[in-house]
Amino acid sequence: MSQLLAAQVARAAPPWNVSAWINSDRPLVLADLRGRVVALHAFQMLCPGCVSHGIPQAQRIAAQFRPEQVSVVGLHSVFEHHDAMGPVSLAAFLYEYRVRFPVAIDEAGVGTPIPRTMEAYQMRGTPTLILLDKQGRLRLHAFGRPEDMAVGAAIATLLAEPYDAASDLAERGDAADVATGPMTPPACDDDGCSV
Amino acid sequence: MSQLLAAQVARAAPPWNVSAWINSDRPLVLADLRGRVVALHAFQMLCPGCVSHGIPQAQRIAAQFRPEQVSVVGLHSVFEHHDAMGPVSLAAFLYEYRVRFPVAIDEAGVGTPIPRTMEAYQMRGTPTLILLDKQGRLRLHAFGRPEDMAVGAAIATLLAEPYDAASDLAERGDAADVATGPMTPPACDDDGCSV
Amino acid sequence: MSQLLAAQVARAAPPWNVSAWINSDRPLVLADLRGRVVALHAFQMLCPGCVSHGIPQAQRIAAQFRPEQVSVVGLHSVFEHHDAMGPVSLAAFLYEYRVRFPVAIDEAGVGTPIPRTMEAYQMRGTPTLILLDKQGRLRLHAFGRPEDMAVGAAIATLLAEPYDAASDLAERGDAADVATGPMTPPACDDDGCSV
Amino acid sequence: MSQLLAAQVARAAPPWNVSAWINSDRPLVLADLRGRVVALHAFQMLCPGCVSHGIPQAQRIAAQFRPEQVSVVGLHSVFEHHDAMGPVSLAAFLYEYRVRFPVAIDEAGVGTPIPRTMEAYQMRGTPTLILLDKQGRLRLHAFGRPEDMAVGAAIATLLAEPYDAASDLAERGDAADVATGPMTPPACDDDGCSV
Repeated sequence: MSQLLAAQVARAAPPWNVSAWINSDRPLVLADLRGRVVALHAFQMLCPGCVSHGIPQAQRIAAQFRPEQVSVVGLHSVFEHHDAMGPVSLAAFLYEYRVRFPVAIDEAGVGTPIPRTMEAYQMRGTPTLILLDKQGRLRLHAFGRPEDMAVGAAIATLLAEPYDAASDLAERGDAADVATGPMTPPACDDDGCSV
Repeated sequence: MSQLLAAQVARAAPPWNVSAWINSDRPLVLADLRGRVVALHAFQMLCPGCVSHGIPQAQRIAAQFRPEQVSVVGLHSVFEHHDAMGPVSLAAFLYEYRVRFPVAIDEAGVGTPIPRTMEAYQMRGTPTLILLDKQGRLRLHAFGRPEDMAVGAAIATLLAEPYDAASDLAERGDAADVATGPMTPPACDDDGCSV
Repeated sequence: MSQLLAAQVARAAPPWNVSAWINSDRPLVLADLRGRVVALHAFQMLCPGCVSHGIPQAQRIAAQFRPEQVSVVGLHSVFEHHDAMGPVSLAAFLYEYRVRFPVAIDEAGVGTPIPRTMEAYQMRGTPTLILLDKQGRLRLHAFGRPEDMAVGAAIATLLAEPYDAASDLAERGDAADVATGPMTPPACDDDGCSV
Repeated sequence: MSQLLAAQVARAAPPWNVSAWINSDRPLVLADLRGRVVALHAFQMLCPGCVSHGIPQAQRIAAQFRPEQVSVVGLHSVFEHHDAMGPVSLAAFLYEYRVRFPVAIDEAGVGTPIPRTMEAYQMRGTPTLILLDKQGRLRLHAFGRPEDMAVGAAIATLLAEPYDAASDLAERGDAADVATGPMTPPACDDDGCSV
């Protein structure tokens, strides 16, 4: 089993709060993805580490695994320069970078620059890669630059698990309680942008 | 002498048509840069080849040569997705990618998506690197990904030339007549975005 | 399941014919590795694609997975420039490139430049990555540059399989009959060196 | 002028002590190269930083500049693992890595592992790039990984200098007195191998 994967006691992934979808003709919800592994890639279009590392990695996931087995979903979680990364800019960005998988625009927070899904998942910044197992449980949470070898192994490990509809947590909607590291001041470096 | 450099018969570089400057407290004009080599880097913030290659190369030019000898100037020449790459988005982009050199926003064209300076220099797309010699003459025009070895050699070759104020073409403002290749339909690939 | 993996009908991996071991105080034999996944990396120390891609990938496998789960084994399969890649040169190479996993020197063939293990596995050249499952069956055979994402997924898929000692093929020693592509004349390119 | 170049007071480059040449049908001597810039690239075939950085850079120099203007010369200066990097191994290495420029085998030292030319030039390790001007004077001495931009600029700067046969130092053979940093214990890291 991959060293990156959280123990199986992980709880259900929080729902996604999305203001709009790109590359999808209808909203995606977690319940629809049961039975598949979900790779949720949170990014900002002006985060250098996302552009050079995170998005190409998400594209390699989408190329390596069949869509009926692994759903790759982008999450545009803007927590800085909000005016610079609106939907029009994002759409052009996705077009030019040839991102074909569905991308959700994370809904703006109220009284905070942190958007709602990012907050619910307690992300530390972008890029962040989240893996959900076939039952919608949060199993991996990686901020920064996990290696392809580790990501490929983690996804395959989840794929090899049986899908047990009976124990599926879809109805419960519990918040995940994944431990995250200490918060740091907002800043971008080569690895990514921190909250 | 670098194999990239045009013959010395090159004529004066066209003036820059600029709607706003970033990273400069005043507009730069060609006449003010006489005596220096000028590296003009035309880019679009959502052009993948500019982000991965052109801008890092321009930053390496700025790091390698002293500013009193070589002026690195960015030119944001948007010819597609105009709404996606406005001044607010550009400013955030430059901040996140740590671009410190002055950047001019190329003035929009009338009745054409091609901005005015891009048109005047007959650029084929982005990224484009233009080198002007100490007398303001257009000496190199490279679309795509020229190698660092070639660019370093071309700049040093121009630096080694004497600056002859008497033959300076500053007053003439002739349009350059650099030969460019055939136009192709607008498209981005790994190398850059073509008009 | 990884798209790279062969069907489970694969037969037992052929034994290794080895003239000497480096980084191991005793000879390794397949039977000793039952219960583990084995990543066999065949290379030549003067094969550019092995040095730039294959060996770093084998090192990333060794770093990602625990040795009691995945055994990474190098196989120095020299089929050209035999005098240039003797044991003394190889030992210095492994030291300078910090290769810590066990490396077998493939035994010279008789009447052929192809060494014996390379021949038995019907390898097309170097680098070649071979994966054996916990029961010693040949499950993946990749010549050239498989992506890390695919390799990590393939290994994790094999790790997730149960180890069934009862059906273990250790005693049988059948030759594998993995299909390989057409042979091409000996040559090295960026991807590797072909027989 | 490139920031890497030594002042013009540099003295004549020491002669080369060579036991054999590869890729040249006759020995090259400094006096024959007067009027050209010489790029002397010292390496060891089992030095990782040489293989990944130094040799490709030397090949880019050879590709960028015309041979009648810039002579690229390799110098195989072995100071460790002498038995592992003999002439037969070197010849295979150069063939596989497609090194076409002349390579000198630095003559073994007496009572020291440091070969004679390496000693005479006071090199700190490999890779080392040495630039000689048209008059055979030592003008640049870079251990490790100088950037292509800097190397291209340094060579072009030397090319732009006039060749003054009258002041040529060919006859004097003075030892260079380039300052070098403090010696460190022999070791290889990503940058190169130190004496």
